[in-house]
Amino acid sequence: MTRKDDSFRHALDAYPVQRTLSIRVCDLDGYGHLNAIRLGHFYEDARASFYRTAFVAVQLPRLLVAQLTIRYLQEAHWPGALRVGTGISRLGSSSVTMVQGLFDEASHCLGLCETVLVNTGGGGSAPIPADARAVFEEYLVRAPVTA
Amino acid sequence: MTRKDDSFRHALDAYPVQRTLSIRVCDLDGYGHLNAIRLGHFYEDARASFYRTAFVAVQLPRLLVAQLTIRYLQEAHWPGALRVGTGISRLGSSSVTMVQGLFDEASHCLGLCETVLVNTGGGGSAPIPADARAVFEEYLVRAPVTA
Amino acid sequence: MTRKDDSFRHALDAYPVQRTLSIRVCDLDGYGHLNAIRLGHFYEDARASFYRTAFVAVQLPRLLVAQLTIRYLQEAHWPGALRVGTGISRLGSSSVTMVQGLFDEASHCLGLCETVLVNTGGGGSAPIPADARAVFEEYLVRAPVTA
Amino acid sequence: MTRKDDSFRHALDAYPVQRTLSIRVCDLDGYGHLNAIRLGHFYEDARASFYRTAFVAVQLPRLLVAQLTIRYLQEAHWPGALRVGTGISRLGSSSVTMVQGLFDEASHCLGLCETVLVNTGGGGSAPIPADARAVFEEYLVRAPVTA
Repeated sequence: MTRKDDSFRHALDAYPVQRTLSIRVCDLDGYGHLNAIRLGHFYEDARASFYRTAFVAVQLPRLLVAQLTIRYLQEAHWPGALRVGTGISRLGSSSVTMVQGLFDEASHCLGLCETVLVNTGGGGSAPIPADARAVFEEYLVRAPVTA
Repeated sequence: MTRKDDSFRHALDAYPVQRTLSIRVCDLDGYGHLNAIRLGHFYEDARASFYRTAFVAVQLPRLLVAQLTIRYLQEAHWPGALRVGTGISRLGSSSVTMVQGLFDEASHCLGLCETVLVNTGGGGSAPIPADARAVFEEYLVRAPVTA
Repeated sequence: MTRKDDSFRHALDAYPVQRTLSIRVCDLDGYGHLNAIRLGHFYEDARASFYRTAFVAVQLPRLLVAQLTIRYLQEAHWPGALRVGTGISRLGSSSVTMVQGLFDEASHCLGLCETVLVNTGGGGSAPIPADARAVFEEYLVRAPVTA
Repeated sequence: MTRKDDSFRHALDAYPVQRTLSIRVCDLDGYGHLNAIRLGHFYEDARASFYRTAFVAVQLPRLLVAQLTIRYLQEAHWPGALRVGTGISRLGSSSVTMVQGLFDEASHCLGLCETVLVNTGGGGSAPIPADARAVFEEYLVRAPVTA
């Protein structure tokens, strides 16, 4: 995960698609913190929700998760809700990189996630069709240009 | 679980404490239905939330789950939210029975749950203290009296 | 769940199908005990495993869980493994009741589970086909006859 | 995650600590594959198991997960078991990087995981004590030297 220039990703409104999910008491570990792996289900749900939002008129390719990187910045607690922002950071010929930020109800950034997804077909990776590429391009997350 | 006279429990407003929780895509099984066991985490969270609501001034006894019965009435789907209603149906000397109903956003009853909780202390069951009994009594769920 | 005469169900060898599953650290709650709901996944896995064992030559009906009752008898800890015994206690025309016992590695009974499964078809319950009934009958769990 | 020279990490015996965990039917997604996030619980359990193995005589520092990277190489299926190999790849002054490999029962590598853990104390990161560093050093995973 590139760390250099991603400070803009610590703000929820950097992400074109947003989703709110409630925390469950079973997400907590023995210290009363949200378990690191269970947090992954918040990002996972927001990815599925992104597909529903973005792929209405165009067929979603069959994407498999190739790599997942999660950064933990602050702890979260029960009860409450978390917000997840989702966008696209990079489009390769057969892969797409999704970036996500996790926020508490006061919009503090609790974590970041980067998922490399590969389009699959015929037993290996396959080019992402042009109409699906066009959809992903609409959701590109870009660092603001500073003078 | 007594089935005779619990039809009033199919309405959300039969329960004194209510809670709304979002469904996550990971709650689904291979058929696109909410997994039966994962539904248990909705009831579990609503029990923990009930304790937070009810036991503000009085100390919560250390209750262990002795028996859990879940009835499945209708299927639920992602995305969306579920509402859980929670109340007390029976107070024994060392045990308390909690009853819950699960509802979709249109208030259709999807399921019912009954949890027998036992107060523990000194390696076995222990009487529920009087102040805690008084709290539980405030949340008793009763069938409406019909003329 | 009938409590009267089921003491024979506290022994692993009362069940015709047995399965061993490892405990994961994420199964623990804040007290270092196995979480009550997550224990449900051990029973669920053993049901799926039962179907694989029993329904080799005969097609498995599409069974939905109608009611699930879990009793908690003793706590379990990580690390280690749990054994689940599975059998059939009752065959109705369109439903089947599965009984299960959960055991630690020293064969102490930690809990019991009873699942009422209903065969579904055409939008409602449907009779269990004769060949599937015959399979379930082979796995009936019966109390030993005492003189 | 460095990709250059980690091919030696695709063999289970590259890792000093190994653990076997059974797959549960609830780990599967709608395609019959192991869910990407739930796979994270296999690595998590193996980390906890590593601490139990390595920190017998020396106190384990309070480590928090700062970053988690998981690579998915092959799909896995139920039923069966997975093996996780665990070792240390890097020791910083206040952080330690744990590397793990996930394998099926035929020792095919299904995935890799890298976890950056930070020692915490007094509200921020803290140096790892010398005795704990010495323990971690015993479990360093190194690429074999080739002539």
